[in-house]
Parts: sequence; structure tokens; C-alpha cells
Amino acid sequence: MNIEMIRAAATRLEGHVRRTPLLNSPFIDEIAGRRVWVKAECLQHTGSFKFRGGWAALSALEPKVRQRGVIAFSSGNHAQGVACAAKMHGVPSVIVMPSDSPALKIANTRAYGAEVVLYDRDSESREEIGARISEERGLTLVKPFDEPQVIAGQGTCGLEIAEQAAAQGVTQAEVIVCCGGGGLTSGIALALEAEASGLRVRPAEPEGFDDVARSLRSGKIEQNARTSGNICDAIISRQPGDLTFPIMQRLVGPGLVVTEDEVLQTMAHAFNRLKIVAEPGGAAALAAALFRKEEIEGDHVIVTVSGGNVDAAMFARALATLD
Amino acid sequence: MNIEMIRAAATRLEGHVRRTPLLNSPFIDEIAGRRVWVKAECLQHTGSFKFRGGWAALSALEPKVRQRGVIAFSSGNHAQGVACAAKMHGVPSVIVMPSDSPALKIANTRAYGAEVVLYDRDSESREEIGARISEERGLTLVKPFDEPQVIAGQGTCGLEIAEQAAAQGVTQAEVIVCCGGGGLTSGIALALEAEASGLRVRPAEPEGFDDVARSLRSGKIEQNARTSGNICDAIISRQPGDLTFPIMQRLVGPGLVVTEDEVLQTMAHAFNRLKIVAEPGGAAALAAALFRKEEIEGDHVIVTVSGGNVDAAMFARALATLD
Repeated sequence: MNIEMIRAAATRLEGHVRRTPLLNSPFIDEIAGRRVWVKAECLQHTGSFKFRGGWAALSALEPKVRQRGVIAFSSGNHAQGVACAAKMHGVPSVIVMPSDSPALKIANTRAYGAEVVLYDRDSESREEIGARISEERGLTLVKPFDEPQVIAGQGTCGLEIAEQAAAQGVTQAEVIVCCGGGGLTSGIALALEAEASGLRVRPAEPEGFDDVARSLRSGKIEQNARTSGNICDAIISRQPGDLTFPIMQRLVGPGLVVTEDEVLQTMAHAFNRLKIVAEPGGAAALAAALFRKEEIEGDHVIVTVSGGNVDAAMFARALATLD
Repeated sequence: MNIEMIRAAATRLEGHVRRTPLLNSPFIDEIAGRRVWVKAECLQHTGSFKFRGGWAALSALEPKVRQRGVIAFSSGNHAQGVACAAKMHGVPSVIVMPSDSPALKIANTRAYGAEVVLYDRDSESREEIGARISEERGLTLVKPFDEPQVIAGQGTCGLEIAEQAAAQGVTQAEVIVCCGGGGLTSGIALALEAEASGLRVRPAEPEGFDDVARSLRSGKIEQNARTSGNICDAIISRQPGDLTFPIMQRLVGPGLVVTEDEVLQTMAHAFNRLKIVAEPGGAAALAAALFRKEEIEGDHVIVTVSGGNVDAAMFARALATLD
């Protein structure tokens, strides 16, 4: 896992990925007490950065292998990223989802061209189902974060941040990244190490699901007690990955932790001041910039808004915090 | 008024304006029955394209004249565009607003650095107040649309559309533009005439406030009976401008008219599928693409989402249409 893999992924993504804008607002700056730059990955294809990793993984496969198709386990942003990248490559994808997934998520994943295979959470193992289908059809598994080409794809977001920050004259800043398993966080950290050494990554996580922050403190992989029960579903995983954790350990600063209420308020500020739709997990980094300012250093901070796949009811909850 | 003025405005805007992305979604395409490309000017500084015209007008002034400051009459997007452009130029701005304007609009305009002068709609004339202040302080009036440098500034959005469409291989398309007084519409039309002759502009307006569509049909300037009473407040003016109308007459196709309910549904689709915040007036062009497809020609359509300055209550009304 190195910068050359990220640069190669960027070459393969060119003309297919969206170069998302780096936004700002004087009103956001005022709340944060410093200049805030927002990398709006919610505007990426499929509504999250996950398209980068999906495309990078698909495009790295041998054509003959790719032709047989790919498989992923996910009901969320990774599913859509892989399905859309597969469709754009003209190859089949199978997404294994729990049968109790919201109907809209299933419909959307299908609309991105995937075959959705449902399983019963209680009686079936998704790994067994996935292994059987993969073997029968010769599909390649695309893991959500602990996979070098996926990390390389997410790292292309870091290359863009390096260029866009330089264009704004920002050479020293903390870069807060919404962090689940650490694919985006470690990818951006590797990109910035090579391209913008004055930019240092900090992971942001929801309160009670701060496995990365705790792992960084203790120096070994720590687990979350639960993997559900927080509105930031997109960035909750059991633990950091075996590949992503050593990268984070070497390159990123202490983790930042935010509450659900802070996340909802942040979604409302993003609506009001940046005109973007952030999902809860995608708003965690900006929430840290707004509500943990005493834990951040410097005149500038860069944050990812990593996804925007939120339903109307949850968004209405966020807007209600403006009252 | 010519393409050279637009190119000169683009040079002056470089490094200050945001190059807003051209977004798309397969879900939007499916509703529209063709490929839809969305120029997301809601992501522009101050949340609308008006920053372009404000900056172009300010930057075209003689430094000595500019130094004294500018004045505008507006409680909306033009006010914020002029105020922000003035602040970034380091010169004073005065915005004349009705005293019954929402407190948030007044606060926001002040936050962009403007001195807000309130007047009583019933007993005072804003033109008289503006004329007196201008004379006393030597301020330059920046009109909202019927002003060559403002049209040139809005036209820079058209230069970007020409480049971004070409990058997507789109050489033939209708370009639907949210249309009030015609500044953005005529500016984009002039830019495309020079840079992308296969792209033809169509204005979009709210039902009952279709002065431009009617003027284009009758061949002379027609007025709206009212200038309030529609959620698309940002694109309602009494009539097309003396400068903008002849340009539109020469270059744009028939107007498209959309209902308030269609606009609200479109805002919800933009939330759901594009992850952007559109205000009602800013959603009119996309609404035309989604709901007037039989009046549009070709495999591709390009639309402006021209602004995103909408309050939470109105946005909640839009989201409720998804139920």
C-alpha cells in the first residue's frame, strides 16, 4: 500500500470520478472560529466517496476476471459505489443485503445495476451465501475498506484535497475525515503524506463508536461493543482494518468524537450555509470542526462531508435543530 | 453587450468565483426520459449565481469609483451577491431592504459586510432613499439584471457550461435556465452562441409569472400582473429587461412554465438524487426538465439550479412531497 497505487488509481478514475468541490462559508468559519474547507464528497457519483474505491477496485482487476463480475456485502454506500462502478464497467455485480433492508435501499442498489441477493439475518450467514455465489459464478469480492485497491481509490480524494488546498494557499491544516473502518482516512493520509506534508489527518467518529480513537490511544486494535444504534450508520464498523490501522497509527493525529445531536445540528448548518445534503455519518468531521474547536490546531481546517444518502425523515430531524 | 465582455468578466472572476460542478444522476435521467446535466449554482458563493454578476460589476469599476462603494436594492440573492463581492473587494456596500424583510435575511446581508438601510414599503420610496444615499456618498448602483457587466458576469456561468458539456461529449442540447429579469438567461445565451452553438437556451418560469415566455411569444415586453404570491420569489420580476429582452428574443427558444407543486417535488428530487439544496426559484429549470419533457427536444438537457437560499420550513414542505 503506497502512494504509487493511489496515483495509479487516480489515472484510472480520470474522466469517470467527479472532482468534488472544496466549499466554504463565512458563517461556518464564524462558528468554527477558523477557516473551514469542506470537501463535498456527498456530490460524488452514488452520493458518497465509496464510488472511488469501487471504481479503483473494479478497474484494477484483470479484464477476464472483471468480466465475470464482483460481489459485495453492504446495504449502504459501499453497495451503491460497487454497483455503479460495475455498471459503468459493463460487468455484473451481486450485492448481498439483509432481507429487512429498507425497500428504497434495495430498489436503489438494483437501479445501479446490481443483482440483489437477500439473506435472513437470523438464520443465514452472509459470508456463506457470498462464498457460494462467488464460487459458482467466479465473482471477485470487493471488501469495503480493508483492501489495497479500495484504500487507493479513497486516497484519490486526498490527492484532490492536496491540490485544492494549495490552490487556496492552505499549506498547514488539520484534515478531519469521517471514519468507519478507516479506508478513506488511511487513503487520504497516505495521499497527503506524499503531496501536502503540512496537512495532517484526524479521524472523526460518533460517541460510543470510537474504536479508531481508542485504538490509536492504546496502540492496538480495539472493538466497538455494538455496531448499530447510532444515526451515523455509514461510519460504524466493528473495528479498524488490519491494513488501515497501521497506516492510521503512523500518520494520523488523535481521534475526535461527536454526539448525535451535534451531527444533526451540523447537517442543518451544511444545508443552510453550504447548500449540500450531508448524511449523519457524512457530517461527523464537520461536526468536529464546529463543536470540538479546542481540540483542533491552526487557522485552517479541512473536513470531508463524505456522504449524503439520508432519508427525508432524518433530514427533517436535522432541520428541526435550526428552530 | 457581447461575448468579449463575458470573457473579460471570466478573467476578472478567476480565482474568486467557484467553478460549480455539472452533476447528474441516473435516477433523474429516468424521470426526465433523457440525460439531464445540472449546473449547480446553488454551490456558488452566497448560494446563488448572483455572486458572478456582483463581482463582475464591482471589478469593472474604476478603482477610485469602486473605493467609494456600491448600493443595491434587494432583499434576496442579488443583495448577498453584491455585498459579498464588495466585501471581497474591500469596499463598502449599502443594501436597501424593506423593513419587514425576514430578520435572517437582514442578518445574513449584514454578515456579508453590507450596511443595511431599511425602508417602509408603504410610506417610502426605495428609489428616493437609494438616490439620496448614492449622491451623499458617491455610491455606484448595481442593478440586478439590466446592466451590461451584471449580464457579463452571469454569462461566465455559460462559459463553464460550454466547457463542461463538451467534456461530457454533449454538443447538442437544450439549456433550461431559471429566468427572472433575464440576466442569467441572456448571459448564458450569449456565451453559448459563441462557445457551443449546438446548445440552445430555454427560459423556465413559474406559472402565472411567465412574463418572459409571453414576451417571447408576442414579440414585445409583457408584464406580470403581480410580483409576489409564488414560492419562486427569486425569479419573479415585473418584466424582462430592456437589455436582456432583445438578447433573449434573438437567441432563446420558447419559455417553459412550471407549477409550484412541480417545483417542490423537484427540490425533493434534487435533495434525494443530487444531494444539493435548491430553492424554489432555483429549481424551476430542473422542474421543466422533469415535468415538461414533451416540450423539450434531444437526448440531453442541461439545467441551471441557480440558487439554494431556502429556509427550513419551505424545504420541509418540499421533502413532504416524497411521502
